[in-house]
Amino acid sequence: MPGLSRATVARLPRYLRLLEDIDAERETVSSGDLAGAAGVNAANVRRDLSALGFQGTRGVGYSVAPLRDRIRRELGIDSRRRVAIVGAGNLGTALARYTGLGKRGFDVVAIYDVDPARIGERIGELTVLDLERITADCAAGNFEMAILAVPAGAAQPVADLLSSAGISSILNFAPQRVSVPDGVAVRHVDLSVELQILSYYG
Amino acid sequence: MPGLSRATVARLPRYLRLLEDIDAERETVSSGDLAGAAGVNAANVRRDLSALGFQGTRGVGYSVAPLRDRIRRELGIDSRRRVAIVGAGNLGTALARYTGLGKRGFDVVAIYDVDPARIGERIGELTVLDLERITADCAAGNFEMAILAVPAGAAQPVADLLSSAGISSILNFAPQRVSVPDGVAVRHVDLSVELQILSYYG
Repeated sequence: MPGLSRATVARLPRYLRLLEDIDAERETVSSGDLAGAAGVNAANVRRDLSALGFQGTRGVGYSVAPLRDRIRRELGIDSRRRVAIVGAGNLGTALARYTGLGKRGFDVVAIYDVDPARIGERIGELTVLDLERITADCAAGNFEMAILAVPAGAAQPVADLLSSAGISSILNFAPQRVSVPDGVAVRHVDLSVELQILSYYG
Repeated sequence: MPGLSRATVARLPRYLRLLEDIDAERETVSSGDLAGAAGVNAANVRRDLSALGFQGTRGVGYSVAPLRDRIRRELGIDSRRRVAIVGAGNLGTALARYTGLGKRGFDVVAIYDVDPARIGERIGELTVLDLERITADCAAGNFEMAILAVPAGAAQPVADLLSSAGISSILNFAPQRVSVPDGVAVRHVDLSVELQILSYYG
């Protein structure tokens, strides 16, 4: 679906969070509640949801279940997504253990490393796999998304491997931007950007 | 300084990244380059920088050094900021070792944990401290910012401790939102939100 603005897409997961966590008995939610969840104003909410074809009812708000299902579908998470983690260092291990992902529809199905000392090690229910396998595993369709938790110098080579094997999306935690071919989505999480934004307000 | 929009503040670190990483010989930068760095259009850049009092020169762009210094000052990072990490598990350890923070003006000065087995352990140049000390250390002005890398259930109690001790800003990685009193800035990093946004594009 074309046409949602980047800002709208970035807010959808925050609306979804509220819609998933809301009391099971509540059937409607106000644009004000959704606005609070996303840190925007109610007019933004109405515009975002109108772009999805939803009009709220004055004094009532939006119906929870249809809106929740629609946002999930829009985000492509109406079925579960399979994620591989690359790098079994501290960050990769922390991500593999992060229970929030499973709750939100992402299954971490594999973790890879190059270090012979780490390969074969257990992390929760996963066993660290040799990075050499990743191209074959990705090409076989074992996962659609990858999280890079590798040193700066390894980020681009790993992104190249994954891109050539047909990966759909890459979330990059390495302190180094990566380039990917058209058709691969990439997001870069830069912790110092978060701290700098926080520094403005603090 | 009042009045910068949230979107503008969120883009300033990305402009700054380019201005810091640019070749030392280059004296000017175009709004197009800045737009590329922040993933917005040139009109956004001109509006953002105009809000800081900067007007570009047609065909030349913006002077690098004054703009860089101004953004640093705006973000409150013209002097270095001291950061404490709470939680010496995998995520806290990864953050303590993350070299990107030092490069961007943040000094990790302490890491705390409650686990007697971790307290006293070395992580790089730091020694894991007993969480019991954190209120006193914060009140003594040892750090202005804190990163929470604790389990969900510990996030609010730790935020309360830090707030009462006069913390300025909290970056929360725990999978649980925290409330803080007025005057304390908080940002919540939710990894599943990043994955959901990525899922839309991938």
